[in-house]
Amino acid sequence: MVKKQTIEKILRFTPKFDKNGLIPVVAQDARAGQVLMAAYMNRRALDLTIETGYAVYFSRTRQKLWKKGEESGHTQKVEQILVDCDQDCLVLKVTVEGGQCHAGYQSCFYRALKKGSSKKLEFIAKKAYNPEKVYKKGKYPRHGRVSA
Amino acid sequence: MVKKQTIEKILRFTPKFDKNGLIPVVAQDARAGQVLMAAYMNRRALDLTIETGYAVYFSRTRQKLWKKGEESGHTQKVEQILVDCDQDCLVLKVTVEGGQCHAGYQSCFYRALKKGSSKKLEFIAKKAYNPEKVYKKGKYPRHGRVSA
Repeated sequence: MVKKQTIEKILRFTPKFDKNGLIPVVAQDARAGQVLMAAYMNRRALDLTIETGYAVYFSRTRQKLWKKGEESGHTQKVEQILVDCDQDCLVLKVTVEGGQCHAGYQSCFYRALKKGSSKKLEFIAKKAYNPEKVYKKGKYPRHGRVSA
Repeated sequence: MVKKQTIEKILRFTPKFDKNGLIPVVAQDARAGQVLMAAYMNRRALDLTIETGYAVYFSRTRQKLWKKGEESGHTQKVEQILVDCDQDCLVLKVTVEGGQCHAGYQSCFYRALKKGSSKKLEFIAKKAYNPEKVYKKGKYPRHGRVSA
């Protein structure tokens, strides 16, 4: 095991996967800076992401690899992969094709807590596309989110 | 339990904490858009964050609440709290006071994977402050990171 203080200084990419073999990943629009979604990758998903240049995640719900946009066409072209001090979280700077949230919004973070409230949200975005038209078979998508 | 499709549409803030009582949180610079760090909150940390207007996290290593900047002075003033479709991840838009990574950088994400490599990192930032001067008692800080 590499020491914490070493992990922070080295230039060897040693991503730390948790006991389930997963690492949290934040996808951020490379141009706009908007945080688009948060999800997880396993080793294989990360390797495929690096190899193909397109984001591949691991769906916890479905327990399988999932190429972002495989159904919707709303892919994420990876421009840069950032790693944090502990190497246990990644940020993907991505160029996106279409809205990134399966609910129809550009970002999964389309609601914010109302000022002065601890319970009420407000929409801060409008839908970028119609998910019912994009996702075929009338099947509600089961991905595109942290709990995916 | 609220249905998934309902969770996505409602304007009631119902953050989903995992089996350890935690929710992942991404802190993003409200002005620059830079992702600063990723950490966790429990219910109490979230309540305190909303109540005080300053980010309070839960340290997994130390199993205690931790006000960001309590030792370094590098606090996070919360401008907006965003929640994702599933309400199981938060983005905090923050105004920051000083470098946010305990290793001395503005952001914990100060390294990126080198283009064309799957193993080599490169620094993409310079230190914003000297952590040895900021953290007292010569004690190396054990927070400011996802694994905190």
